[in-house]
Amino acid sequence: MSQWLTKPINTLLDADIQQAQKHQNLLTKPQGSLGVLESIAVTIAALQKTQYPRVDQAQVFIYAADHGIAQENVSAFPQAVTAEMVKNFSAGGAAICVLSHQHGLPLQVINLGLVSELPDLMAVEKHIIAPGTKNFLQHQAMNDEQLIKAFDVAKNKVEQAKSDGCELLIAGEMGIANTTSAAALVCALEGNAPEVIAGVGTGLDDNGMKHKVAIIEASLKNHANHLATPLEILQSFGGFEIAALTATYIRCAQQGIVALVDGFICSVAALFAVRINPQCKAWLIFSHQSAEQGHKKVLEIMGVKPLLEFNMRLGEASGAALAYPLIRSACLLHTDMASFASADVSEKLA
Amino acid sequence: MSQWLTKPINTLLDADIQQAQKHQNLLTKPQGSLGVLESIAVTIAALQKTQYPRVDQAQVFIYAADHGIAQENVSAFPQAVTAEMVKNFSAGGAAICVLSHQHGLPLQVINLGLVSELPDLMAVEKHIIAPGTKNFLQHQAMNDEQLIKAFDVAKNKVEQAKSDGCELLIAGEMGIANTTSAAALVCALEGNAPEVIAGVGTGLDDNGMKHKVAIIEASLKNHANHLATPLEILQSFGGFEIAALTATYIRCAQQGIVALVDGFICSVAALFAVRINPQCKAWLIFSHQSAEQGHKKVLEIMGVKPLLEFNMRLGEASGAALAYPLIRSACLLHTDMASFASADVSEKLA
Repeated sequence: MSQWLTKPINTLLDADIQQAQKHQNLLTKPQGSLGVLESIAVTIAALQKTQYPRVDQAQVFIYAADHGIAQENVSAFPQAVTAEMVKNFSAGGAAICVLSHQHGLPLQVINLGLVSELPDLMAVEKHIIAPGTKNFLQHQAMNDEQLIKAFDVAKNKVEQAKSDGCELLIAGEMGIANTTSAAALVCALEGNAPEVIAGVGTGLDDNGMKHKVAIIEASLKNHANHLATPLEILQSFGGFEIAALTATYIRCAQQGIVALVDGFICSVAALFAVRINPQCKAWLIFSHQSAEQGHKKVLEIMGVKPLLEFNMRLGEASGAALAYPLIRSACLLHTDMASFASADVSEKLA
Repeated sequence: MSQWLTKPINTLLDADIQQAQKHQNLLTKPQGSLGVLESIAVTIAALQKTQYPRVDQAQVFIYAADHGIAQENVSAFPQAVTAEMVKNFSAGGAAICVLSHQHGLPLQVINLGLVSELPDLMAVEKHIIAPGTKNFLQHQAMNDEQLIKAFDVAKNKVEQAKSDGCELLIAGEMGIANTTSAAALVCALEGNAPEVIAGVGTGLDDNGMKHKVAIIEASLKNHANHLATPLEILQSFGGFEIAALTATYIRCAQQGIVALVDGFICSVAALFAVRINPQCKAWLIFSHQSAEQGHKKVLEIMGVKPLLEFNMRLGEASGAALAYPLIRSACLLHTDMASFASADVSEKLA
């Protein structure tokens, strides 16, 4: 199913990196003095095969979905909040709205299925798969068709973004209980213990944490006989939004769009994307390390260091949108700075 | 001299912090989930005594000056680069120009005295104190009048910014050999060993580093009998731009302007500002930790954690300008997000 997920991806070539680095070294600054910004610019220039890397055309997607596992009281907030926050995204009152507006980023919410039905709302597209996943303590979260539909919605959304000229995509998520889903996914994929990966989410207390860990442990046992592949694991524990994020990262890489990854949930989706199609990793930039304890572990598994460590734990693409201007700075510096020759500035002493 | 430096500063009041925190807690997100952004917003709201913290009116100053100590070959770049870079700032080709333009920040260069005379240049103001400081290996870098003039230029510039409505000021520096000056300043003020504070600057090799450390050690000995106060130390080893930065941070705090501190040189100036008038610290936000080895130490001395760690070492306010949109995000989120009540979003379960 979904054969497209493993189709080839253009990856970084040494020759392209060297050419971009050569250009960086002509700019009026001591070599290497822009630090991380230089690596970002060189990477994007090499991926885009240009001397003028660009991320000006950028968009934000928020995939929203409900989770059956919320029935087990694993979240500090009631499940109604998923739908309420979708309304808040539409009305412009959420954090991601403020950040998108600040940076001039178009924001689209993609409703993949909530327990509450919502009226038509500005900036919200309905691609309803089901009114939330099933409770994965007893059932597989999704059936085959639902997983494929989540992938396909994402594939179509990314292709639409590409045809709009999108150079960088920020994808985020909203779904009460999705840190439980994400933690179960990591444990099943990587063999970590739930108490190492599960975190407080939106704000559990100690008892809440113990309960969350116990639910994940029981769920892992109940599904033990069908966790052989990343897709089986996604089907067992995933949310529609996490499956869509996984497909988004892969399709972005296939289409030549840089993806800026948000926090814990998004990084788990990125890990699945990398396990399914490893070459997509070159196209991912990790924006921040969140306060959710499992996030650090997931970033370590992938061997990546995110740009920011701001102790955020909000989701909804907020960390990625916050970091966006830093990526833009890297590209603008690479493109717009004068060279030693053009500015008539003396170079380093021999 | 310069009695104004120790005049009182409005500092943070607990009542103002609590009021700002109360507002943060009404916003549609789990409490604390914006992490560092919440503390920034709360701090600025409390300093500005408003529910609507703002940093939209922001400016960039670059103080440029030459250093007599450059005669001792302590820099990887020739001294001519100070003037050449001032021309590059004026022409728009330097990193700070690109970043200022990205964020719509007016950029002003203040020429405090270079070895080369420069023609009149766009966006460059001349406030020449002398054609550079004296070589502090043998002489005090500045006389009394020169130090006072550096302070007064900064005082006037900040007052002008205030009358322009400036809410946040980014100050930076350009001056070949100024990491040597800054390192000597820290060692004299805090008693650290030069090899712990001195770094590679624009790119010294191992021999260059040994030589730089030896020059600082010898200079510290030569001035040992007049290093009793921060002002004496500034006069002995300072650059005009470092003295101006010190005065800038103090005057910003006195005038109610938030100052975003750049890298090593600026943090050393901030340390002097805090030693001269400790209450100014509340008004300083530290933007990044640079690759210059002494910077980490200086930040530790002040007990502050900067926003970014990007391994930059360029100066010219580049790290502060890079971080500016993050501060702006913090303020906009505090001001523009919906509350649970206004957006009709359910709060956390009891």
